[in-house]
Amino acid sequence: MSQPTILIIANSELDSDLYYATRFLAPDPFIFIQTDGRKAVVMSDLELDRTKAQAQVDTVLSYSQYEKRLKSDGVTSPSVVDIVEAVLKERGAKEIIVPETFGLRYADGLRSKGFLITTKPDPFFEERTVKTEEEVQAISQTQRAVEAAVQAAIEVLREATAKKDALYWKDGVLTSEAIKKIINLKLMELDCVAQHTIIAGGIHGCDPHDEGSGPLRPNETIVMDVFPRSSTNRYYADMTRTVVKGRASDAVKKLYDTVKEAQEGAIGKVRDGVEGRAIHQWIMDLFEKKGYHTGIKDGRMQGFFHGTGHGVGLDIHEPPRISRTNWSLRTGEVVTVEPGLYYPEIGAVRIEDMVLVTQTGCVNLTKFPKQLEV
Amino acid sequence: MSQPTILIIANSELDSDLYYATRFLAPDPFIFIQTDGRKAVVMSDLELDRTKAQAQVDTVLSYSQYEKRLKSDGVTSPSVVDIVEAVLKERGAKEIIVPETFGLRYADGLRSKGFLITTKPDPFFEERTVKTEEEVQAISQTQRAVEAAVQAAIEVLREATAKKDALYWKDGVLTSEAIKKIINLKLMELDCVAQHTIIAGGIHGCDPHDEGSGPLRPNETIVMDVFPRSSTNRYYADMTRTVVKGRASDAVKKLYDTVKEAQEGAIGKVRDGVEGRAIHQWIMDLFEKKGYHTGIKDGRMQGFFHGTGHGVGLDIHEPPRISRTNWSLRTGEVVTVEPGLYYPEIGAVRIEDMVLVTQTGCVNLTKFPKQLEV
Repeated sequence: MSQPTILIIANSELDSDLYYATRFLAPDPFIFIQTDGRKAVVMSDLELDRTKAQAQVDTVLSYSQYEKRLKSDGVTSPSVVDIVEAVLKERGAKEIIVPETFGLRYADGLRSKGFLITTKPDPFFEERTVKTEEEVQAISQTQRAVEAAVQAAIEVLREATAKKDALYWKDGVLTSEAIKKIINLKLMELDCVAQHTIIAGGIHGCDPHDEGSGPLRPNETIVMDVFPRSSTNRYYADMTRTVVKGRASDAVKKLYDTVKEAQEGAIGKVRDGVEGRAIHQWIMDLFEKKGYHTGIKDGRMQGFFHGTGHGVGLDIHEPPRISRTNWSLRTGEVVTVEPGLYYPEIGAVRIEDMVLVTQTGCVNLTKFPKQLEV
Repeated sequence: MSQPTILIIANSELDSDLYYATRFLAPDPFIFIQTDGRKAVVMSDLELDRTKAQAQVDTVLSYSQYEKRLKSDGVTSPSVVDIVEAVLKERGAKEIIVPETFGLRYADGLRSKGFLITTKPDPFFEERTVKTEEEVQAISQTQRAVEAAVQAAIEVLREATAKKDALYWKDGVLTSEAIKKIINLKLMELDCVAQHTIIAGGIHGCDPHDEGSGPLRPNETIVMDVFPRSSTNRYYADMTRTVVKGRASDAVKKLYDTVKEAQEGAIGKVRDGVEGRAIHQWIMDLFEKKGYHTGIKDGRMQGFFHGTGHGVGLDIHEPPRISRTNWSLRTGEVVTVEPGLYYPEIGAVRIEDMVLVTQTGCVNLTKFPKQLEV
């Protein structure tokens, strides 16, 4: 029996499934068709030569050649759907599997031509969640750059002078923006591209997606969440550390120790076959037991209100998840473990490592120390 | 008569239409619904507070509140589609307009619940192609950073020593990678994020999407195409210059002068109401007339085999196009004009400026000189 035909039409700079399938980067959409395990792409003239040289596919077809043929067959102005139809017909494919995100216009066009189009839930390529040795090395390489960048930031915090109202460095007030720039420049030097780096002091950190802005202050929590992509190997890494420049209050220390206990306890539970949901629930229970309640207070979410972890690879957020959803971890998956607690009256603490799931446990791919006061 | 309801489900870091509609950046997908001109978003607990503070929408709804309500109504495990259904029903919306890229799974789910889902061709928000004064300023600001970065690269080329086999700078051979890093670091200092910067010497430049690699050589064309996004204002800019370190041959000079004549002639034709196709055809005709033929030679595409220009804004490639396709330019659109000629035996030349279409012509947003030999 023949395998189902797979179809993706996307831009492989944005669609990691397409990059995974072809190992070819293009800034404009192209057509990928896999029939009986054989991969074909249909490329514009602009990309034809580069595709032949670089793409890991069996066949590279010319879009303009198909266009020409269809025109000579009487199709006045062949569309993408007409071209896909021609290629699918040549391969005798009627039943097509596409990603859930497959564009509706193309799907409607192909269905109106009689093709049976079915979406396949994420992960579209199951094997993508399980990393090869080469992929683990790529992620680790990116992680080394993250660590160098966070180290550079911590050195600046150490050099900074704590005054009453703010931290000072060189000629002026030390801001979130300044630390972000130090981190992002260091990453760029190491061939990694960072976007949305989080350096969130005090109240800013209490919103886990607030990137942080303005002056950094002494004796307050500073959440540093750094997650660049390597521009050479294309793989992401992800790490969070929380620090205080100056003295942490007892309340902050207790918050930090609780998050650290949860994070390290959760890492201890990661192994092949474990339910991500069980790990997430264990952390939620631990926090409640320690008196850290989650819910709306004073009109905003407080406590622990995000997932515990996510897969990391060609996307920064990819399957599997360690969260409320149902997902068994498998050997070879790379996931973050990143509980956090957020209370505007105390501060924000999140600690995040990346680990590789193994048969008996996990290997922590993060080598960076955890230290509250710097 | 009520306006049609608009629905987008996407990640606004990747989907610029969603960012344009909400001015809210989120790394995970969220739901956007516009009914009778009023904008609503449905957000996870994680994003709720930040959305209320930052998003330019009329209503911020809580995903988990809808989830809770549906569960109490007997839906065991409410899906995204169930939530969207509930919100649409409240608004009495049955006929829904979505982008062409709207994910097929959600579309199938909503159709099976009786909604009429229709795609709308790009540009989804027509007004997005016409830039406001603020948007033009944002693009220009990014362009200033591009110019500073290319200037830095040219200064390094000037400082470099031309030896027979390669250019030398500081301790060793000057490579494409080194120039890219100089450009990308300069851009990062100026709060712009560059990816896929092209520094393509000699034969590399003859493939317009080859980013370039390895040693740069004297007396060869070097194509420099730089197109970062500002991380502060989110707008892109795009510029290409071609230079030769050392002496350009007569053949390269003639190639350069022809591309420059085409580029400047094309800019002279840009104005409100002109057909992009006519400008593109004018360039194609000029090249043929000057003896520069386009087609496959020695097994690869040579000549001019890409579009003349594209819109620039929140996406690096967005409508309108100046190419074979049918598109009238309108006042307020920002487009590139970037013809190129590529012949492995001579070299590659592409020259690109960004211009703002006006009633009577255009304003060139690019201030950088065009000089072949550096």
